[in-house]
Amino acid sequence: MRYFTVIAYDGTRYRGWQRQGNTQDTISARIEAVLSRLDGSAVEIEGAGRTDAGVHAMGQGCTFTLQGSHAPQDVQDYLNTYLPEDIAVLSCETAQARFHARLSSVGKVYRYEIRLSKTPDVFRHKYQWHLGKPLDIECMERAAKALCGTHDYRAFCTAAPKKRSTVRTVQSISFSEDQGTLSITFAGDGFLYNMIRIMVGTLVSIGMHATEPEEIPQILLSGVRAQAGPTAPPEGLCLMKVLYP
Amino acid sequence: MRYFTVIAYDGTRYRGWQRQGNTQDTISARIEAVLSRLDGSAVEIEGAGRTDAGVHAMGQGCTFTLQGSHAPQDVQDYLNTYLPEDIAVLSCETAQARFHARLSSVGKVYRYEIRLSKTPDVFRHKYQWHLGKPLDIECMERAAKALCGTHDYRAFCTAAPKKRSTVRTVQSISFSEDQGTLSITFAGDGFLYNMIRIMVGTLVSIGMHATEPEEIPQILLSGVRAQAGPTAPPEGLCLMKVLYP
Repeated sequence: MRYFTVIAYDGTRYRGWQRQGNTQDTISARIEAVLSRLDGSAVEIEGAGRTDAGVHAMGQGCTFTLQGSHAPQDVQDYLNTYLPEDIAVLSCETAQARFHARLSSVGKVYRYEIRLSKTPDVFRHKYQWHLGKPLDIECMERAAKALCGTHDYRAFCTAAPKKRSTVRTVQSISFSEDQGTLSITFAGDGFLYNMIRIMVGTLVSIGMHATEPEEIPQILLSGVRAQAGPTAPPEGLCLMKVLYP
Repeated sequence: MRYFTVIAYDGTRYRGWQRQGNTQDTISARIEAVLSRLDGSAVEIEGAGRTDAGVHAMGQGCTFTLQGSHAPQDVQDYLNTYLPEDIAVLSCETAQARFHARLSSVGKVYRYEIRLSKTPDVFRHKYQWHLGKPLDIECMERAAKALCGTHDYRAFCTAAPKKRSTVRTVQSISFSEDQGTLSITFAGDGFLYNMIRIMVGTLVSIGMHATEPEEIPQILLSGVRAQAGPTAPPEGLCLMKVLYP
């Protein structure tokens, strides 16, 4: 039977969702190990977003097929019993045979948290980029507007593919500040490798007046990675939600 | 000059606020080391609450005297620069010579978090007791009412002192539930060693119908530790606020 689950994880101690090569240090490998034990067969899972090492998720989408026919609640309970405490299954339901967590998804929402206050938030420091200085958020909002839309985001991608398209649509980039922490929420149809972290690095560079918001269109047009800002650290990033039709 | 600071910490990797014997693994030892470096002299600090190993704080009160005369903002910045990321100084101000974080305090507020849902909260599991089953909160509220007031709390204390009073006043115990997590907030003039964790263990035992709310007055009267419930784990506990006149 085929299943769709929503997964949350603290990515701090993992080498990302998925990784080439033989390693047990990924989130998908941990989930696959528990599912294989439940099903008595080797189970492979598909994640909607291949989050990097250190990146977190509150709503990763994930599909898999089991040989056996288990009640979805039993699958969820089994996983939550045997998975480590930093990975949790929030929901589980049966799915159509052709439903695929990544291929069927139509959009994703990510959040990036930046600590602006010099004082760290001791309970969230693993989930924030601790910048420790104020940013010109109005400038960043102007730049964010220019980053939205349908563009070739090649300049905002690490190791851009040569043959596949780097055109994506970013629907919105919104800002909210609360008690010294800035949250930037990105919604789009899909994101390239490191795209959000490079957008954040560029936005922060603009918020510190090292780059002008007016440079964004030119950076996009250039298609050159070096024109954009640095890649922001992974720990501030969290996959919030995967959208399906 | 004398200073008063408010401190937040994630207590997970420390042996508590303060500990007998020579150890650097306590929160107070970490703060003292940085202050001694700033002041060029051995600094001793006083905390309002001597939190146990693994217990957290969002508002621990702390006083100390420095030989030098430093601006409070400089003291705060210096501490936040050199302290580990799981300890933060939220505020710093100068204080009267006789003002003492513990002796001058008139009350404290603690919060205890219990995860009721079978699904762990991956971002807060270090700050919660993961019970993983529902509780009869109405029963617990009735018992909490009986626990409030001015009583001899000897039955709710580990290694009760023989000569000092174990009479305390608990002003309020309030409950709130949000997305599978129960928070119990305790306000009182002071709490005995392990008193909140034993009250929580007793309340949970009542919430699981292993003990009746009507037994509380008798447990208080007995003054016998074994009559009360087990000591709840430290990680769910957080010192929220220390009250001063």
